Amino acid sequence: MSFIDQLQEIVGSNGLLLGEEVSARPNASKGRGSCPAKAIVRPANTEELSAVMKLCHANDQPVVTHGGLTGTVDGITCAEGDVVVSLERMRSIQRVDAEAGVMVVEAGVVLENAQAAAKEAGWQLAVDFGARGSAQIGGMISTNAGGNSVVRYGMTREQVLGLEVVLADGTVISSMNEMLKNNTGYDLKHWFIGAEGTLGIVTRAVLRLRPQPKSVQTAFVALDSYDKVVTLLRRLGSDFEGKLSAYEVMWNNHYRLMVETLDKHQAFLPVDYPYYVLLEQESGHESKGEEHFMEVLSAVMEEELVTDAVIAQTSQQAAQLWEMRDDVGSIARHFKPLAAFDISMPLSEMEAYVERVTDTMADKLPEVGLVAFGHLGDGNLHILAGPAHEHRAIEEVVYGELVKIGGAVSAEHGIGLEKKDFLSYSRSEQEIALMKTIKQSLDPKQLLNPGKIFS
Amino acid sequence: MSFIDQLQEIVGSNGLLLGEEVSARPNASKGRGSCPAKAIVRPANTEELSAVMKLCHANDQPVVTHGGLTGTVDGITCAEGDVVVSLERMRSIQRVDAEAGVMVVEAGVVLENAQAAAKEAGWQLAVDFGARGSAQIGGMISTNAGGNSVVRYGMTREQVLGLEVVLADGTVISSMNEMLKNNTGYDLKHWFIGAEGTLGIVTRAVLRLRPQPKSVQTAFVALDSYDKVVTLLRRLGSDFEGKLSAYEVMWNNHYRLMVETLDKHQAFLPVDYPYYVLLEQESGHESKGEEHFMEVLSAVMEEELVTDAVIAQTSQQAAQLWEMRDDVGSIARHFKPLAAFDISMPLSEMEAYVERVTDTMADKLPEVGLVAFGHLGDGNLHILAGPAHEHRAIEEVVYGELVKIGGAVSAEHGIGLEKKDFLSYSRSEQEIALMKTIKQSLDPKQLLNPGKIFS
Ligand SMILES: Cc1cc2nc3c(=O)[nH]c(=O)nc-3n(C[C@H](O)[C@H](O)[C@H](O)COP(=O)(O)OP(=O)(O)OC[C@H]3O[C@@H](n4cnc5c(N)ncnc54)[C@H](O)[C@@H]3O)c2cc1C
Ligand SMILES: Cc1cc2nc3c(=O)[nH]c(=O)nc-3n(C[C@H](O)[C@H](O)[C@H](O)COP(=O)(O)OP(=O)(O)OC[C@H]3O[C@@H](n4cnc5c(N)ncnc54)[C@H](O)[C@@H]3O)c2cc1C
Repeated sequence: MSFIDQLQEIVGSNGLLLGEEVSARPNASKGRGSCPAKAIVRPANTEELSAVMKLCHANDQPVVTHGGLTGTVDGITCAEGDVVVSLERMRSIQRVDAEAGVMVVEAGVVLENAQAAAKEAGWQLAVDFGARGSAQIGGMISTNAGGNSVVRYGMTREQVLGLEVVLADGTVISSMNEMLKNNTGYDLKHWFIGAEGTLGIVTRAVLRLRPQPKSVQTAFVALDSYDKVVTLLRRLGSDFEGKLSAYEVMWNNHYRLMVETLDKHQAFLPVDYPYYVLLEQESGHESKGEEHFMEVLSAVMEEELVTDAVIAQTSQQAAQLWEMRDDVGSIARHFKPLAAFDISMPLSEMEAYVERVTDTMADKLPEVGLVAFGHLGDGNLHILAGPAHEHRAIEEVVYGELVKIGGAVSAEHGIGLEKKDFLSYSRSEQEIALMKTIKQSLDPKQLLNPGKIFS
Repeated sequence: MSFIDQLQEIVGSNGLLLGEEVSARPNASKGRGSCPAKAIVRPANTEELSAVMKLCHANDQPVVTHGGLTGTVDGITCAEGDVVVSLERMRSIQRVDAEAGVMVVEAGVVLENAQAAAKEAGWQLAVDFGARGSAQIGGMISTNAGGNSVVRYGMTREQVLGLEVVLADGTVISSMNEMLKNNTGYDLKHWFIGAEGTLGIVTRAVLRLRPQPKSVQTAFVALDSYDKVVTLLRRLGSDFEGKLSAYEVMWNNHYRLMVETLDKHQAFLPVDYPYYVLLEQESGHESKGEEHFMEVLSAVMEEELVTDAVIAQTSQQAAQLWEMRDDVGSIARHFKPLAAFDISMPLSEMEAYVERVTDTMADKLPEVGLVAFGHLGDGNLHILAGPAHEHRAIEEVVYGELVKIGGAVSAEHGIGLEKKDFLSYSRSEQEIALMKTIKQSLDPKQLLNPGKIFS
C-alpha cells in the first residue's frame, strides 16, 4: 500500500486533502504562496494523529502543523513533499467547569469560540488578539501568544494548566492537569508551549479561566516625557490594584500619523504631545470601578504626571480609541511595502532605543519613515516602517540597535522562518546549542516543523 | 594533583569543606542524618562553579546541590563519595530596578533578604513561606515553591523572568531575560524551574516584583457545607477583583484539634461548623480596602453563604489567626510520629476525597488520627496524620485514593527521594519516560542530583 493510501486508511477520505485542495492553501504568513505539501492530513482525534505520526516516523516523513494560519513569522511554511497536519477537525470544547474556572478543549478550537464558551459559563478566557476569529488554541499555545490582556493576566503560557501532545514518533503525552499547583516531576507542558510545533503537536489543553469583569474604564492620556510614561505605569499598577488591563503607548509619530497625516481617526487630544497612552481598567464592580478610576486619574492629573486626558464616556468612544490603536492596516498602506517589528526590551532602554533607531534610519535609509507604539506594560514595542524596499537593511537597523541592549527580536510572534537569521541577536550560542540538544532528544529524525526557529 | 586538590585550586580554601565540616551537615530533610559527601564545594561565583562542574564531569563525579536545606522531600540527600555544591557564598543581591520592578540575585540569597530588598525598593517579592529565613532563591526556584500568596500571584515560576544555570558539563546558560514578553525560541528557564537540581545548577535569577499592598484585611469565617466553601472562593475571586491573597480552609477536625483538643489557640468561632476559612485581601488603598472588604463580607453573610465570621480588628488578631493556621509543630507533637501530605486535586473532588481517606483510614488503621486543611484557592490540600508508625501504610491510603481522581502526590514540595515511589501515581508511563529522555539529553552521565525524582 502506498504511503498516501496508508494515511487515508488512518484518517478516512474526509481526513485527507490532496492535489488542488492542498495547493489552494497558503505557504507563508498573510496568506501568501501555495502549499507544496504532498498531503494535508486532518485527524479527527488524538488516536488518529498518533497513528499518522507513527507512520510518518517510520517513513522519515517531515510534518508541518497547521493551526489557523494567522501566525506572522512563516511558521507554517512547507518544503516540497512535506506532510501537513491540520487540527481543523479537532474543534470540540470538551468541558467547561464553571465551579473551578477551567475548560478542556481540543487544539483546533478557534480562539473566539473558546472565549464565547468561557463567557457563557460566567468566566473569561484571558487571551485576546486581532486574529481571534481564525487562530486556534493549538496555534496560540504553540506560539505562546500575547495580545491585549498580558499586562494583567500574562501570556498564553499562564492560562495553560494541562496539555496533551503527540510526539514525533506518535507517542501521546497526556498531561491534562487541572490544578494550579502540581510539582510532581518536570512540568512537561512548558517545553511545548511556544515551541512552534517543533517538539510535538498539541492536541488538547486544559485552560485556566479568569473572573469576568463587570465594567471596563478606558482613557486616552497625553504625557510630556518618557519618564512620566514609566512612572504612570508603575503608579497605576499600584493604584488600580492589579486591575490595569491595558497600557498601550503611542509615540508622537504614531498618533500624528493616525489623526493628522492619514486623517483617519478622530483627534481626541491635540497632536503635539510627545507620548500618548491608551489605558484601561477592568473592574469587578459596575459603579465603583468608574468612581475609583476617576479618582486615580484626577490625582495623576493634579500632580501633572498626566498633561491632558480624555475619558471614554461610552463604549463606542472606547471602541474608537481602540480602533485607532489597532489600525495597522492604514499604516501598512501608507508605508507600503511595510516592515513590521514586534520586539521587547527593558523599559529603561526604550526611549533611547527609539531615538537611536530613528536617527540611524534617517541616516542610513532617509526615505524610510517609521512609527513606534507598544504594549508598554509588557516591555513590548512595535515599530512599523516603510517603504520597505530594502527589508533586510531595515531589519539590520532595528535589530542592530536591539542587540546592544539585550532586547528580544520577538516579543510575542515567535521566530518561525522569518526571524531565524536574527535569533542569535537575542540568544547566546550556548542557549541555541541547548535548544538544539532538546530538539535532538525529542525529535531525533528532525521531522517536526523542520528548519523553524533554528536550522 | 588529587581531585580534591584540583577542586581546592578552583574555589580556594574558603570554598572547600572537608571531613567534620561535611559530616556535621545533615543528609535528609528536617536536619536528619550526616552528610557522607567527600567534599562540600562553595563556589564564589558562576565561573568557579563552571570550572568545578567541568572537573566533576571529566571525572564522572556525581554532584548534589545544597540550597538552604529546608526542602521537605530529601532532595539534598547524598550517597557516599558524592560532591556537594552549596550556593551559600553566592548571596549577592546584584540589582533592584525600582522603575521596572525587577531584581537580579545570586542563587544563594536567602528568601527573607530578597524580600527585604524588594520592600526597600517599594515593591514586594511575592513568594513567601515559613522557611523564608533559610531557604535560598536557587532552592525556591528548583522546587518551584508555592506558599502563602499563590492564589494571587502564582508559584515561584511566575516570579522568574530570567535564569542563569550551569549544566552538568560546566556550560553556563545565561538566560537573564528581564522582559515580561520574550518569544525568541524555547523559553529555557522553564526546564530548570522545579527540576530539583537534576538538570542544572541555578546560579542567578531575574525576579519579577509586584506592587506592595497598602493594607491587608483578614477574616476567619465558618461555612456549613463544602459547596459553600467553593462558591465563596469563586465569589471572592470575582468580588475582591483579583485581590484575594489567601483562602485557607480548615476542616472541622483541624480547627477542633487546634482550639479544643490541644487547647493551644483562641477559639475565635464555635467549634461545631464543618468548615472554616481564613481569608485575606491585599489592597492598594488604606481605607477603601477595609470598606470594600466589609461590604463584600456583609453581603455573603446576608445571603447565608457564610454562617459565622470574625474580622481581625488589629494586625495582632490577624497574626493570631495565622499562627493557628501555621502551627504544624503542635500537630506534629500530637500525632508523633507525623505523616504529612501536600497534595492537590480538582476542587470538585476534594470533599469526597477527604471523606474517603477518613473512612479508609478508620477502617484500615484505626489508631491513626488525621486533620485536613489547605490552600484551597490553589487546589492544594494538606493532610497530617499520626501516629505514623506505619508510614508506608498511611501513604498507601492517602495516595491510593488520590490516584483514582487524577490528583498530584506533590502540590508544592516536589518529589526528591521521599515521593519517588509515588511519582507514577500522578504521572503516566509516557510522561515519566519523557522526563527521562530530557534528563538523559541534558545530563547523559547522570551526575546531577542522581536518583532524585526518578531512578
Ligand atoms: C490580525 C492579527 C493580529 C495578531 N495579533 C497578535 C497579538 O496581539 N499577539 C500575538 O502573540 N500574536 C498575534 N498574532 C499572531 C497569531 O495570530 C498568533 O501567533 C496565533 O497564536 C497563531 O495561531 P494559529 O492557530 O493561527 O497558528 P498558525 O499560524 O497556524 O501556526 C503558528 C505556529 O504554530 C504551529 N502550530 C499551530 N498549531 C499547532 C499545534 N496544534 N501543535 C503544534 N504546533 C502548532 C505552526 O506550525 C506554526 O509554527 C496576530 C495575527 C494577526 C493576523
Ligand atoms: C517551615 C517550612 C515551611 C515550608 N513551607 C513551604 C511552602 O509553603 N511552600 C513550599 O513550596 N515549600 C515550603 N517548604 C519547603 C521548602 O522551604 C522549599 O521547597 C524551599 O524552596 C527550598 O529551598 P532551599 O534553598 O532550602 O532548598 P534545599 O532544601 O537546599 O534544596 C531543595 C531542592 O532543590 C535543589 N537545589 C537547591 N538549590 C539549588 C540550586 N541553586 N540549583 C539547583 N538545584 C538546587 C536541591 O538539590 C534539592 O533537590 C517549607 C519548608 C519548611 C521547613
